[in-house]
Amino acid sequence: MLNVTVRDHMMIAHSFRGAMFGPAQRLHGATYVVDACFQRPVLDADNVVVDIGRASEVLHALVGELSYRNLDDEPDFAGMNTTTEALAQVVGDRLADSVRAGDLGAGALEIDGLVVTLRESHVAWASYERPL
Amino acid sequence: MLNVTVRDHMMIAHSFRGAMFGPAQRLHGATYVVDACFQRPVLDADNVVVDIGRASEVLHALVGELSYRNLDDEPDFAGMNTTTEALAQVVGDRLADSVRAGDLGAGALEIDGLVVTLRESHVAWASYERPL
Amino acid sequence: MLNVTVRDHMMIAHSFRGAMFGPAQRLHGATYVVDACFQRPVLDADNVVVDIGRASEVLHALVGELSYRNLDDEPDFAGMNTTTEALAQVVGDRLADSVRAGDLGAGALEIDGLVVTLRESHVAWASYERPL
Amino acid sequence: MLNVTVRDHMMIAHSFRGAMFGPAQRLHGATYVVDACFQRPVLDADNVVVDIGRASEVLHALVGELSYRNLDDEPDFAGMNTTTEALAQVVGDRLADSVRAGDLGAGALEIDGLVVTLRESHVAWASYERPL
Amino acid sequence: MLNVTVRDHMMIAHSFRGAMFGPAQRLHGATYVVDACFQRPVLDADNVVVDIGRASEVLHALVGELSYRNLDDEPDFAGMNTTTEALAQVVGDRLADSVRAGDLGAGALEIDGLVVTLRESHVAWASYERPL
Amino acid sequence: MLNVTVRDHMMIAHSFRGAMFGPAQRLHGATYVVDACFQRPVLDADNVVVDIGRASEVLHALVGELSYRNLDDEPDFAGMNTTTEALAQVVGDRLADSVRAGDLGAGALEIDGLVVTLRESHVAWASYERPL
Repeated sequence: MLNVTVRDHMMIAHSFRGAMFGPAQRLHGATYVVDACFQRPVLDADNVVVDIGRASEVLHALVGELSYRNLDDEPDFAGMNTTTEALAQVVGDRLADSVRAGDLGAGALEIDGLVVTLRESHVAWASYERPL
Repeated sequence: MLNVTVRDHMMIAHSFRGAMFGPAQRLHGATYVVDACFQRPVLDADNVVVDIGRASEVLHALVGELSYRNLDDEPDFAGMNTTTEALAQVVGDRLADSVRAGDLGAGALEIDGLVVTLRESHVAWASYERPL
Repeated sequence: MLNVTVRDHMMIAHSFRGAMFGPAQRLHGATYVVDACFQRPVLDADNVVVDIGRASEVLHALVGELSYRNLDDEPDFAGMNTTTEALAQVVGDRLADSVRAGDLGAGALEIDGLVVTLRESHVAWASYERPL
Repeated sequence: MLNVTVRDHMMIAHSFRGAMFGPAQRLHGATYVVDACFQRPVLDADNVVVDIGRASEVLHALVGELSYRNLDDEPDFAGMNTTTEALAQVVGDRLADSVRAGDLGAGALEIDGLVVTLRESHVAWASYERPL
Repeated sequence: MLNVTVRDHMMIAHSFRGAMFGPAQRLHGATYVVDACFQRPVLDADNVVVDIGRASEVLHALVGELSYRNLDDEPDFAGMNTTTEALAQVVGDRLADSVRAGDLGAGALEIDGLVVTLRESHVAWASYERPL
Repeated sequence: MLNVTVRDHMMIAHSFRGAMFGPAQRLHGATYVVDACFQRPVLDADNVVVDIGRASEVLHALVGELSYRNLDDEPDFAGMNTTTEALAQVVGDRLADSVRAGDLGAGALEIDGLVVTLRESHVAWASYERPL
């Protein structure tokens, strides 16, 4: 298997509901350094997994939809704890839609797996892996 | 699959037996930056893989059992080469016991895999993956 | 000159006022990975710059005062843009007060300089250096 | 599963053919930080995945064959786009040959998987995974 | 003193003249991860060292002038060894011109020092510091 | 000012004397990732701060004198707490001797400052700066 990963980031505010979250129940925020990994069994005719320029642009647009926002006010996340792992899933599923819609080019339809990792600090991060 | 990783570290002394270890047969030491990764197929009702606060505490207690020690003098490691990969396995198996004992909460019983990575320097590290 | 640095982090929400901030005028947030560097011309009798355990505790308490908060609601920051560089200065000045108050021990009174660095992402960070 | 990874690097020049590569069609270059990961189901009698000293030497020799070269002039790569992912595959396949030839010792014949990762910058990298 | 740093990167080909460079006398290449640090004694009225958005854009344009090129063919570098430290100086001096020309805004004229760091691998980097 | 830094590492055992060290009074160990930074006001005729190959070799030999050892048993460190900052000073002073002895070549005699940084973990490090 071959894979290519590109990195971007987003800065958001949010709060969590549930006693287990302790002080994180208060409104606070996070920088998420976001890694999007594209997987496929063999390289294409150009010897790439994905057009890395387009992959970077698609990821940048996708984190731009979330960035510089208070997620507590976003209708998409009403009543949802936007934990690091939950946001990794959101980004991963939106990225999958984007790949299938052809946003990364026709060749990218051969991509059969994605891994999205969100790093919230130097000591904690979360990932979401899914087939495509 | 979703996973969450937390990081801690430990500083130990030890020596290895076997000609292949060269100068590392002498008593020396290492800092291990320890990453504990928890995996499960879906998020729980709070939208988490694991209570990250409890996961950090459990990992901290676990590396505390090994830290600031000469592993050559620990009964648990008598006659054993405590290589980076062997210690990753020790930490991973102890962490598995801890998860199953309920130390990370009842929800954590849904965790079905662990990966423990020990980084010994900027140019070498080892991991141990196991189901739960 | 000798120096010792310890790292911690904090997660906050805030917004900025001023057209130059663009989308960051909206309520958003950040993880700041915080490095506190202590400087002195020579080591003490124990061969340390500072008791690294106490330094870590003091830094942890200090970031704890800011962490998991919306800085827009904190009286200390009323009417102030809490940019990365401004927060580095806040943390640095509070840390200086702590050193001078003896929180890091009598030996730490020999510390004659501090550098506080706040990393807001993998592509941007800010520092504040001051004498003591 | 257990694995051990060692890191080295190489610095090369090359150019790409195909409109999708944009300015990278011009002769340019890259530093690749190369991670070679060796996998096996259980540790050997010495409690290692692989002799880490030999693994480092073999990887160093292997990147040395590519380093400080213009890959456009290398017969091995004639007519081939030497993308990061394609080079990860080249390094991974050569490393597999080396393991099977016994260059890492007889014990290393138990290694049943390799992952080679090439990091081309702080925001992009590629990996190649293969069984052995 | 306060400073703000932004990061970008560039990928170039080049070769060196002089026996001390050994195999690096051959045409090869490098990724340089480029950090541009802006310094000033006090913050401005907006509480910033520099408009970080404009700083990022200026740095991006500046590395874009060098990126995806064979520096051996660039008239600006004729007869010059484009070592990491020499390129740090080139980037730093061009950035200084840009600050003084007002490209980062009128407020940035208060910037009185720059540090440019080029990281060529995980084990080597170079910096250039200059007043402004 | 221009500077060039090279990185290596060493793995040692040691213990500390003094109640402030808590559990680190026991025999334990550390990996130190060691950065040696060479400074000079202008580049030499080859456009370098220092021959980076020779600098790497000299640093490697120097950390080799300490590596894979129990520092408590080394006559050079008898009665001395080998803290991270103290070891940074030892490495820095030995490196200064090496530069002055001409081990890095005649051109390196123009180097007028050194900074040695020892990273003991992902959350703590120490540096020693000295003129030459």
